[in-house]
Amino acid sequence: MTRKNILYSQSGGVTPVINATACGVIQTARARSDRIGKVFAARDGIIGALREQLVDTTAMSDSEVAALRHTPGGAFGSCRFKLKAIEENEREYERLIEVFKAHNIGYFFYNGGGDSADTAWKVSQIGDKLGFPVQCIGVPKTVDNDLPITDTCPGFGSVAKYVAVSIMEASLDVKSMASSSTKVFILEVMGRHAGWIAAAGGLACRADGDPPQVILFPEVPFDEEAFCRAVDTSVKANGYCSIVVSEGVRDAEGRFLADAGTTDAFGHKQLGGVAPVVAGIVKKNLGYKYHWAVSDYLQRSARHIASKTDVEQAYAVGKAAVDMAIEGQSGVLAAIRRLSDAPYRWDVVPAPLADVANQEKILPASFIGPDGFSITEECRRYMAPLIQGEDYPPYGDDGLPQYVQPDFRMVPRQLPDFDIS
Amino acid sequence: MTRKNILYSQSGGVTPVINATACGVIQTARARSDRIGKVFAARDGIIGALREQLVDTTAMSDSEVAALRHTPGGAFGSCRFKLKAIEENEREYERLIEVFKAHNIGYFFYNGGGDSADTAWKVSQIGDKLGFPVQCIGVPKTVDNDLPITDTCPGFGSVAKYVAVSIMEASLDVKSMASSSTKVFILEVMGRHAGWIAAAGGLACRADGDPPQVILFPEVPFDEEAFCRAVDTSVKANGYCSIVVSEGVRDAEGRFLADAGTTDAFGHKQLGGVAPVVAGIVKKNLGYKYHWAVSDYLQRSARHIASKTDVEQAYAVGKAAVDMAIEGQSGVLAAIRRLSDAPYRWDVVPAPLADVANQEKILPASFIGPDGFSITEECRRYMAPLIQGEDYPPYGDDGLPQYVQPDFRMVPRQLPDFDIS
Repeated sequence: MTRKNILYSQSGGVTPVINATACGVIQTARARSDRIGKVFAARDGIIGALREQLVDTTAMSDSEVAALRHTPGGAFGSCRFKLKAIEENEREYERLIEVFKAHNIGYFFYNGGGDSADTAWKVSQIGDKLGFPVQCIGVPKTVDNDLPITDTCPGFGSVAKYVAVSIMEASLDVKSMASSSTKVFILEVMGRHAGWIAAAGGLACRADGDPPQVILFPEVPFDEEAFCRAVDTSVKANGYCSIVVSEGVRDAEGRFLADAGTTDAFGHKQLGGVAPVVAGIVKKNLGYKYHWAVSDYLQRSARHIASKTDVEQAYAVGKAAVDMAIEGQSGVLAAIRRLSDAPYRWDVVPAPLADVANQEKILPASFIGPDGFSITEECRRYMAPLIQGEDYPPYGDDGLPQYVQPDFRMVPRQLPDFDIS
Repeated sequence: MTRKNILYSQSGGVTPVINATACGVIQTARARSDRIGKVFAARDGIIGALREQLVDTTAMSDSEVAALRHTPGGAFGSCRFKLKAIEENEREYERLIEVFKAHNIGYFFYNGGGDSADTAWKVSQIGDKLGFPVQCIGVPKTVDNDLPITDTCPGFGSVAKYVAVSIMEASLDVKSMASSSTKVFILEVMGRHAGWIAAAGGLACRADGDPPQVILFPEVPFDEEAFCRAVDTSVKANGYCSIVVSEGVRDAEGRFLADAGTTDAFGHKQLGGVAPVVAGIVKKNLGYKYHWAVSDYLQRSARHIASKTDVEQAYAVGKAAVDMAIEGQSGVLAAIRRLSDAPYRWDVVPAPLADVANQEKILPASFIGPDGFSITEECRRYMAPLIQGEDYPPYGDDGLPQYVQPDFRMVPRQLPDFDIS
């Protein structure tokens, strides 16, 4: 039997540790060259797979592959592109199968979130139907932590650590200045649909009065009066107030606060950032001096403060995908299973992709405190292990992390061009 | 001879390493108890000194003092408060001398920027005049790096490292996504008056095409056309463009871009953040998808990614202040002197406060590239050593840094209340 090749593809927004998954895939495949051929990586995600733009990772040195483990961003490129339903655009699925055939690909690893799980599932179905069966394995990745079944999504733990550490540090700053200057600090974090990342800020709050004193979740309709009362209470009790706000916070009518026509701190209409909107509300109602930060891409690329647990899980799901491929699995997600909270023990098991696809795991109501501005012990129990441990990248003499950006050798194309719909 | 006490006071915006200076003062004073009495720290800066709110650091355990070295923020509190000129408000200076008398203070260490140097200088003059001579020593601190004479200001190196690492990481993110999504990333950094911090972003750019491809300095009047050309050139050549923008960027008329009535990405008037304004300009002229971040307090509290060189210098100026006090110095700044660039060698020497006070060290024109969007080799030679080395805080089992927040024992007051003007 000729050994089949792996096609590995990254999908959607990248994370600080998605390349650790790529590292896990490539290193494990190299170790199992008795069963696995080459690992090809789609350039810029599924778009590259459709266009037959494949990186031949066998040209990468062992040290380049090893360095992927500590390099943020998506080394092979990612994309925001979702295959349409098979009924609507069967030609894209057929094209994938043609690419697979042309390059002896027997294993398709799709490293992404819910959409990717869905696509991987569909590709596994169409392969069977077209007489070219491909083992499709979903590999979880998303800072949003919104995949069902898997205990967590690689990427989330590091973003959670970044947010918890950052709000802890910035709060020490504002606390120092509060007697005569800034009294309110607002940190905007990601999470358009769910409050997982905002909740992570709550890990910094370990005793009464600790920051962040107020968390604004997308799950809790924004109540200006209750919010201002909470901020004022903290300023009076602690001298200052630290706030973590999710970009996805909505008002009672379900409109994003970031574009609900609210005015910013200077009385102007404001869009495209909820932190300045919240600052405006503080200013208007309480008059306290404030500062605000928007962490945006910084939070999801901060490999320098990655969680060791997260890096290990990201690597493990990549390794497990290869193991599952060798075992003959298909249509499964390499899911993380929690065995115990403290000490946190976990393993990686196959879960049916059909159960994972297109489902969002929302932040449970039991994770949000009764005041609507804090997290519960149950949330802490779930989340605390995910930020445990540090895993620093190596630094050069120049004081900068030694992130790798390999020159890629592309696999020679064999098929005609393909227009993406 | 009875040993005199030290009054140590933090001033102005805090830094990730100002407490390392406090650590240097207290540990050195403890080691020299043959010559130095107690170290008192003013609560919330000079305001606490005037109000006779003094922390008795002798109540802090050795391990609490040691932990100051890795704790960001200002442990004793800081303030934004500048003493008026002596002629305008002699009673404040007299009050300080009364406090000094009441608590046997022979040494006043003022840990801050240019204003603090000025105040320390004036206090040394008034002490002599009022017959209670106090040795006044300025201890440099400012993320703005704008003090003259001293080679650098403790605090700056760590902010520089944070900015260089952050733009490097976020650029790997945007590069991954650029083929089908975000093509322009904008990071706003501090520096209302000078481009030192923005220039630090340039350290991440080590080869042609490396990010950040565009730096916007306060020293270079914003030219929308040239800016858009530079962004477009980078997107066409590299697939994306990373931008570091100083909060202090101004247009040709000298108005801050952040409040020049420019519209943001959504066509609305925008104030209080220059990154969204720059995003709006990109959108209007080029139409590229963008993301923006405002690092605000995160950058100046990020002790987790502090520069080892910076931590060592922060500690060293605190230690040197005590040594200078014992040597009988007064009216001096504990200034860092550069002995060589590579390897970076430096020591701490006394510099006359009168030469330091109220002078700003601006970013030299020779540090800015001819295109106005980059740094020169001369700038890199100066700045690179300042971000060298890592100095991680210890972390707990909970995955969070073990920052210390000691309970303070206050020195019993002996004087009547004092109203601050």
